[in-house]
Amino acid sequence: MASPDQEIPETPAPLQAPAVQRRTRARGDRSRARVLGQAAALATLEGLDGVSIARIAAATGMPKSSVYVLFGSKQELQLATIDAARENFIRHVVTPAIATTSPGRRLQRLCDGFLDYVEQRIFPGGCFFVTASAEMGGRHGPVRDRVALYQRQWRWLLSETTRQAHAAHELPPETDPDQLAFELGALLAGSDIAAVLHDDNTLIERARQAIHTRLGAQDGTSTG
Amino acid sequence: MASPDQEIPETPAPLQAPAVQRRTRARGDRSRARVLGQAAALATLEGLDGVSIARIAAATGMPKSSVYVLFGSKQELQLATIDAARENFIRHVVTPAIATTSPGRRLQRLCDGFLDYVEQRIFPGGCFFVTASAEMGGRHGPVRDRVALYQRQWRWLLSETTRQAHAAHELPPETDPDQLAFELGALLAGSDIAAVLHDDNTLIERARQAIHTRLGAQDGTSTG
Repeated sequence: MASPDQEIPETPAPLQAPAVQRRTRARGDRSRARVLGQAAALATLEGLDGVSIARIAAATGMPKSSVYVLFGSKQELQLATIDAARENFIRHVVTPAIATTSPGRRLQRLCDGFLDYVEQRIFPGGCFFVTASAEMGGRHGPVRDRVALYQRQWRWLLSETTRQAHAAHELPPETDPDQLAFELGALLAGSDIAAVLHDDNTLIERARQAIHTRLGAQDGTSTG
Repeated sequence: MASPDQEIPETPAPLQAPAVQRRTRARGDRSRARVLGQAAALATLEGLDGVSIARIAAATGMPKSSVYVLFGSKQELQLATIDAARENFIRHVVTPAIATTSPGRRLQRLCDGFLDYVEQRIFPGGCFFVTASAEMGGRHGPVRDRVALYQRQWRWLLSETTRQAHAAHELPPETDPDQLAFELGALLAGSDIAAVLHDDNTLIERARQAIHTRLGAQDGTSTG
């Protein structure tokens, strides 16, 4: 991070009866989820650097003190925002694809799921992780490390699925699975940036066409 | 822009003798170029939003008043930074390629030039325009418009060169030039983000391999 806020320990929870504590915790969880959804959306427009306790208080209409109690510091708020964006990504992109038995079709669905998620602007600035990766590239610190970790997991998922598709003879035998997975990941990220910058979803259609051409063999027939 | 500084008219130049004016202008031009080089590098790490008169004064060691005299407003400083980054991009990526007679080889050199420019970290955060595009996606205003204009010009150059290579039979006849140009541009941008985020230039090598495979026919023989 360029100038991370200093870590501040969380305020100890006040002494309360258990039922009150449970209700308070449930309310706190809902507040956290609501704040983090707005923080993730804001980060795709204004950057993760823009996700500060003051900015999020202003965006959600909550008092700064309440946002502070929920997160404790700007850095903790940023890390929680990244975690919430990952859950969102898994829900929209990974989960709908992952149960598909054929690894070739699973790979296709992961890519299509990503492009749907960008096309539908689940976040107004496109894929949270593409935006955050571009922002955090060249920096150091826990926020960059968290973004890089989740991007490595995504690239691993693409690689692993491509390897399985290759082993199942659902890709041409001469395919280098890691190379193909890299190219798919780069193409998806680059397409997201272009489609959002120019607000032009025909570029998403171009990306779909590219993916379908590359994975044409995913039903078992060779593309040569 | 989320919150652009208000436009402030430039201070009128003081009455001076012509020779003094020329010397002052030359000094001013050198100062501008130096400030803009640092501003572009900073923007790839901290975002274009980070390019403010106060931040650039702190980064260059110049008094704020001097930066203000050179640029007049945050927005003018940002626009001048984008223009300077474009000149840098043309110098490093476009000019070395553009004189190549064969359009297929010219296309290859444009892509290789881009990857060299990222690999050498001409800017510490990688390609200025990839970072700026990701930052400005979903926003509105003159800064976003300037970034989008230059990105359209880059995509046009890739498309036009691909069309020429196709017309010169340096690409397989079944190639859709606009589709190929889109895929090259997206792959280059996505590779830049991954290589910089993970500080891993082996990903640049993967991008080179992808480009060479796609453009393998650029010497006139078909890749099929």
